[in-house]
Amino acid sequence: MSNKLRFGLPKGSLQDATIEKLAKAGYNIQVSSRSYVPYVDDEELEIRLIRAQEISRYVEHGYLDCGITGHDWIMENGSKVHEVGEFLFSKVSRRPARWVLCVPEKSPVKSVKDLQGKRIATEVVNLTKRYLKKNGVKADVEFSWGATEVKAHELVDAIVEVTETGSSLKANNLRIVDELLSSTPRLIANHTAWKDDWKRRKIETMAMLLKGALDAEAKVGLKMNIAEQNLAKLLSDLPALRNPTIANLSLKGWVAVETIIDEKVVRELIPQLKAAGAEGIIEYPLNKVVY
Amino acid sequence: MSNKLRFGLPKGSLQDATIEKLAKAGYNIQVSSRSYVPYVDDEELEIRLIRAQEISRYVEHGYLDCGITGHDWIMENGSKVHEVGEFLFSKVSRRPARWVLCVPEKSPVKSVKDLQGKRIATEVVNLTKRYLKKNGVKADVEFSWGATEVKAHELVDAIVEVTETGSSLKANNLRIVDELLSSTPRLIANHTAWKDDWKRRKIETMAMLLKGALDAEAKVGLKMNIAEQNLAKLLSDLPALRNPTIANLSLKGWVAVETIIDEKVVRELIPQLKAAGAEGIIEYPLNKVVY
Amino acid sequence: MSNKLRFGLPKGSLQDATIEKLAKAGYNIQVSSRSYVPYVDDEELEIRLIRAQEISRYVEHGYLDCGITGHDWIMENGSKVHEVGEFLFSKVSRRPARWVLCVPEKSPVKSVKDLQGKRIATEVVNLTKRYLKKNGVKADVEFSWGATEVKAHELVDAIVEVTETGSSLKANNLRIVDELLSSTPRLIANHTAWKDDWKRRKIETMAMLLKGALDAEAKVGLKMNIAEQNLAKLLSDLPALRNPTIANLSLKGWVAVETIIDEKVVRELIPQLKAAGAEGIIEYPLNKVVY
Amino acid sequence: MSNKLRFGLPKGSLQDATIEKLAKAGYNIQVSSRSYVPYVDDEELEIRLIRAQEISRYVEHGYLDCGITGHDWIMENGSKVHEVGEFLFSKVSRRPARWVLCVPEKSPVKSVKDLQGKRIATEVVNLTKRYLKKNGVKADVEFSWGATEVKAHELVDAIVEVTETGSSLKANNLRIVDELLSSTPRLIANHTAWKDDWKRRKIETMAMLLKGALDAEAKVGLKMNIAEQNLAKLLSDLPALRNPTIANLSLKGWVAVETIIDEKVVRELIPQLKAAGAEGIIEYPLNKVVY
Amino acid sequence: MSNKLRFGLPKGSLQDATIEKLAKAGYNIQVSSRSYVPYVDDEELEIRLIRAQEISRYVEHGYLDCGITGHDWIMENGSKVHEVGEFLFSKVSRRPARWVLCVPEKSPVKSVKDLQGKRIATEVVNLTKRYLKKNGVKADVEFSWGATEVKAHELVDAIVEVTETGSSLKANNLRIVDELLSSTPRLIANHTAWKDDWKRRKIETMAMLLKGALDAEAKVGLKMNIAEQNLAKLLSDLPALRNPTIANLSLKGWVAVETIIDEKVVRELIPQLKAAGAEGIIEYPLNKVVY
Amino acid sequence: MSNKLRFGLPKGSLQDATIEKLAKAGYNIQVSSRSYVPYVDDEELEIRLIRAQEISRYVEHGYLDCGITGHDWIMENGSKVHEVGEFLFSKVSRRPARWVLCVPEKSPVKSVKDLQGKRIATEVVNLTKRYLKKNGVKADVEFSWGATEVKAHELVDAIVEVTETGSSLKANNLRIVDELLSSTPRLIANHTAWKDDWKRRKIETMAMLLKGALDAEAKVGLKMNIAEQNLAKLLSDLPALRNPTIANLSLKGWVAVETIIDEKVVRELIPQLKAAGAEGIIEYPLNKVVY
Repeated sequence: MSNKLRFGLPKGSLQDATIEKLAKAGYNIQVSSRSYVPYVDDEELEIRLIRAQEISRYVEHGYLDCGITGHDWIMENGSKVHEVGEFLFSKVSRRPARWVLCVPEKSPVKSVKDLQGKRIATEVVNLTKRYLKKNGVKADVEFSWGATEVKAHELVDAIVEVTETGSSLKANNLRIVDELLSSTPRLIANHTAWKDDWKRRKIETMAMLLKGALDAEAKVGLKMNIAEQNLAKLLSDLPALRNPTIANLSLKGWVAVETIIDEKVVRELIPQLKAAGAEGIIEYPLNKVVY
Repeated sequence: MSNKLRFGLPKGSLQDATIEKLAKAGYNIQVSSRSYVPYVDDEELEIRLIRAQEISRYVEHGYLDCGITGHDWIMENGSKVHEVGEFLFSKVSRRPARWVLCVPEKSPVKSVKDLQGKRIATEVVNLTKRYLKKNGVKADVEFSWGATEVKAHELVDAIVEVTETGSSLKANNLRIVDELLSSTPRLIANHTAWKDDWKRRKIETMAMLLKGALDAEAKVGLKMNIAEQNLAKLLSDLPALRNPTIANLSLKGWVAVETIIDEKVVRELIPQLKAAGAEGIIEYPLNKVVY
Repeated sequence: MSNKLRFGLPKGSLQDATIEKLAKAGYNIQVSSRSYVPYVDDEELEIRLIRAQEISRYVEHGYLDCGITGHDWIMENGSKVHEVGEFLFSKVSRRPARWVLCVPEKSPVKSVKDLQGKRIATEVVNLTKRYLKKNGVKADVEFSWGATEVKAHELVDAIVEVTETGSSLKANNLRIVDELLSSTPRLIANHTAWKDDWKRRKIETMAMLLKGALDAEAKVGLKMNIAEQNLAKLLSDLPALRNPTIANLSLKGWVAVETIIDEKVVRELIPQLKAAGAEGIIEYPLNKVVY
Repeated sequence: MSNKLRFGLPKGSLQDATIEKLAKAGYNIQVSSRSYVPYVDDEELEIRLIRAQEISRYVEHGYLDCGITGHDWIMENGSKVHEVGEFLFSKVSRRPARWVLCVPEKSPVKSVKDLQGKRIATEVVNLTKRYLKKNGVKADVEFSWGATEVKAHELVDAIVEVTETGSSLKANNLRIVDELLSSTPRLIANHTAWKDDWKRRKIETMAMLLKGALDAEAKVGLKMNIAEQNLAKLLSDLPALRNPTIANLSLKGWVAVETIIDEKVVRELIPQLKAAGAEGIIEYPLNKVVY
Repeated sequence: MSNKLRFGLPKGSLQDATIEKLAKAGYNIQVSSRSYVPYVDDEELEIRLIRAQEISRYVEHGYLDCGITGHDWIMENGSKVHEVGEFLFSKVSRRPARWVLCVPEKSPVKSVKDLQGKRIATEVVNLTKRYLKKNGVKADVEFSWGATEVKAHELVDAIVEVTETGSSLKANNLRIVDELLSSTPRLIANHTAWKDDWKRRKIETMAMLLKGALDAEAKVGLKMNIAEQNLAKLLSDLPALRNPTIANLSLKGWVAVETIIDEKVVRELIPQLKAAGAEGIIEYPLNKVVY
Repeated sequence: MSNKLRFGLPKGSLQDATIEKLAKAGYNIQVSSRSYVPYVDDEELEIRLIRAQEISRYVEHGYLDCGITGHDWIMENGSKVHEVGEFLFSKVSRRPARWVLCVPEKSPVKSVKDLQGKRIATEVVNLTKRYLKKNGVKADVEFSWGATEVKAHELVDAIVEVTETGSSLKANNLRIVDELLSSTPRLIANHTAWKDDWKRRKIETMAMLLKGALDAEAKVGLKMNIAEQNLAKLLSDLPALRNPTIANLSLKGWVAVETIIDEKVVRELIPQLKAAGAEGIIEYPLNKVVY
């Protein structure tokens, strides 16, 4: 087993995104409906697909050497694991998942203090109990098997539910009272595995490549030509173009400027570049960025 | 409301393509089945999804500041709006949608003149009436709720229907008699919004980025190495390589040539480049091209 | 017909992959459910979608000028055609399809010799008969219409089935006894068409572009900056960086190194590059690579 | 054509229900995706599938001899046709479709009178205009291509929309101001066809069988045994058991009572029957009921 | 094995219909995606799902005791099996599947004689060869792996294809030249199994119940009341009411008439029954009919 | 609220079956994707769809007056509710769901005693803990969020999982060690609601009708004619025909025998009836059977 790393990936809603990101990192995984062990094109890896809620538990116990799961479930399970790094997956909002305390819009509940003696439904029973304790509130917390949002209206007094953009809460006429936890995906490792040199190096390499791939999703390459005389002003006016590669062109007096920038500033930047005299601006996609 | 731009996107068949193109332009939109207001990662925008047939009407009335819809529906509705620009979406054919007058293959109708006193079914009643009037033909035009192609065979004498490649008409054994209108997607703005400085600049920026993204779909980056002595001939023989960036390599006597060209000429060009002595030719994808 | 090339593509499981690869090569094909002749944006081409099992037969007879199909079916049909080239499609495993002789895990059969007088089910009856003959074994070979794997357990004594990763065989508790044939997609041409100058040049151009597109899937562009003093060591230590383009930067003492490498070595290479002093490493995708 | 009846069925949301009901009436129809003329196992019939909105128009013009469509679209089109009968299709609610005038829950509009000078979106433009005229209200009525409910909140002041249970309106936070029309499916005939003896008899037979099948859906057969001495009281107490068939049993003093009743009273009736001494009560389904 | 009957059912297009009919016969089968042996609620049965094309082969060899498959594939395979009975499955058309020789509508081929020296594609190679031989025609017959209809237009001169209603042939612009074989589903048994008393009785019982269930699909129960004085005329006028059960009602002078008739005559019969004085006519569905 | 009964139905896998059965009982429910309160055609009912795991909890607390859920979840939750009755839903197997202790086929574990100090994953943590305690075994029990079967092979030592036919366990190569609980659907009521006269009568009526509908699924009506002289022997030989209704026919010497029997004996009975001289045997379906 010394040359195998057992890696747990979250089955379910994050599964496709995780597999896609790992492919970008260079690890191609193929899930078969006929077998519960996915194929991966790296003989040093063994992939297991496990519910995100349970990964930290199996990493802690050592059944997995490492895994990707949410910060929320590591906290909920109270798992003792080594956290290797944080990874942001969602391209659209790039916002973390938030576990929030919600009540119906017309509820008299204004703060967690108003929940004394009430009943709360949630999938994260431990997180909720700790939160209530911290706030000095005593309330019944019951495990919700699903459709938690609907329960807030008549079955319980409040819920603790996860949201990204808040639109599902709004559609259910729920009001956010407080936020318990903000959660992002993490790569975690078993403490013993992390002390094994080979495993640690393997995990660190994968983390570097995965980070390179995720960083690349939020960045783009930008190239443009500019007259040498305008270059200094361009660079001083636009600090976003940090550390550009500047190459001489055969055309006298012109240089090619190339840099990597955050994709989200492009929509502000391109109009400014044009104004500063840049020509032939092109933006191209990246697979990985490693500084 | 002064810092909000209300933007109408076409719901339905063009919806996914439009959202994908706007993402390439830098505006990420997330449609929720639970809410009719899509999420967009720009706080200055408010997105509305509305049927393409109706967008120009609501832009004209000012309920929307601007929107993307087809030239055909702007004409059909006779909407008084400012046209900001034309955008070609379809990658495969890059051909505009055409509204054509069709009859069954075996119909005696040879030209619009033969439709005097006949019955025509169409979704574009106004366009059709104007077309008939222009041709001095009197005929009944009735609104078709769908499946118009099938009607041409027994319920009416002719139809006016939209087609891109003509293959659906052929499959229904229909013959094109005439073309009424060729239509492409347009970005349109309400006249008052267009006079508002902030809104106009916002619209123009979006138009520039969207155009950059669409242009990039039809173009690719091309790089190759060539001996300096062959460079002049290469450039004179291949005018498609306009304005290449030529960088010196450390290897004496060789240069790197890089340019942006129309993707559709690549299949002609690459064999010619090889013949001219180019080596290590690579083609890479682009996100945006802004001249 | 002199300016038309009739090109057969495999209908079914390989269809989408083939169309996607041809799009990358520069030929955009649109399959319509209403018409059996797909649209292609090249007037010199006529596309036909035909089952992979039959393409070589129709190329041999001249109904098609050329086509893409598996080596296995060319062999099974014994078709006399010109093989233009081999193309690897599957990104995940990049492994060829293998036709293997299988028996249930608990079967006493250990080699093909043990099949004397037995019964074998397969879709490739001719290949199997030839294989048995070569091995001096007499056995009944019957055509299997599908679900061949299930038959091995009670309806026949062995099967000859195709597999890529072997996981479906494992899920059916089957053991591989021998391999009959390893097969990859091929571009084949009719012998007469191949002698026609125009057709041959057209086929060769398409082969070159398709190969360029497929090669590009297995490769990536890599760029980095490095201090000039570290360059020589970097290049000698890392032979994978063959023939890099080295451009001078305006920053004295630093150069930009750019090269095209196999994507599958990236995950080994990037940690080594960092160790060797490379900075700002970026990996970008390619559309085509033509040497 | 004298022995053919051309029958129009509503394409779309009512299509499957209509075909199922006609099958119960004894006419089996098979719709093919490859042909726009459905197969029917009656050589005297020719079926056409046409949008419900258009059927009355084509019946009026004589392209169809008869058809099934909603009362609402007959009214909207103002078609001059013979109405053969009314048919209730929906099993769950058995409630007619209602076209209602709606506004957002918080709108100040309380009655149609408050819409003077306002804008209304609807699919039934003619019905709405007539309704406004009858109420002496002048307002703009614009054709809505779909998603009408969403428009009420910001694009127009009110909508006229169809609803069955009202739950979709409630989900969109809309309030019903008034009802314009209550609509049920109708069998209609062209006036000339109705005067043709053969066609009229054919239509009447189909109407009788279709009515028999629809009536049977709302009814069930009920059988029970009862001691003869309790029979008179049973029948007088339970008038719902009208005209039962009473058969002597071989067991002296007992009779079998059998009748056809509305399915919706069964849930009240069975407890009463048991109380009245009935034994071995069984309920069985019916295909047709013709009085 | 003495108390087990191994029963082959056709996998694929007939599968759901066959399982539904067997459920009506009283044998409930549950197919699992996880197991290739379906569950059946009869411990004396072992079900196997096998392609219709192959069942007769495995029944002949004794791997199956009996099975349901088409007459066509028994003939194509030339299997020596005992035919227990014929079963009609399709409710809509109740027409057998027909294997027909087809050519494009505009083909000069008028009869099989015109195919001398030509090429024919088909899935039933043996049937086609025997048919050609019988007609004294020599032609190449090649196995078609699918989409045979499309081939008739350019790849071969004619096809032999299966059709039920002919509508798919018409949609492909094909003309039927001749019919080779009309085929219906058959229950077949292995000759040795048929000689085993227990197996034969089991097969016969299943055949009787399956026939009872299929007969019941084509029949309905009909009940009505009629005045005794009208009864004789009713019965003599309507021979379709053969062997009715006539029960006395407690209402003097009236009888209840009940019978089982073909469902397809109901649409003619009910109007006649009403004319003859019948009242309270009800039609009810049947599960099984065994004479 | 006095005239409303709040009724909880299980959301998810049992949902469609429950709604279908209630429709057969006479209560038509329509679930809307837009609203979490389903429509029901009885104004005295309010339906709530809640996960089966949670219904007993909400019935106990009085948020629901009654509900349908499994015996297993009532036990797991330890809910104090009134059990009104047991209802069997699954037609195919009619077997209860069984919660079983499973281990991999090759596990050394032979009985629950072998699990001392081991780890068990299950969705029914409380049931499992009670079971272990009863057997004097100490083991870790952890909640499984799903895919429990896969865990047994490497993540835990045993699982407690639900099964109906056992085929999924077999497909996962698991062996049943013991059965903890056999569970069927139950109608349960809140203790206070059960003491309310109106609610109790309403619940009892619904229970009677639902039981009548479910009983009817397992039974069929059987009718046949027989010569009076053979009747006595028929009845004595076939006790399954208990309490038949025997009606005189107008044909002298013949009687009609009609009875209700278990559908599962039909396949044995019909051959015996024919042997005993019965003629014209028909089997018909039932909607409800209430003794």
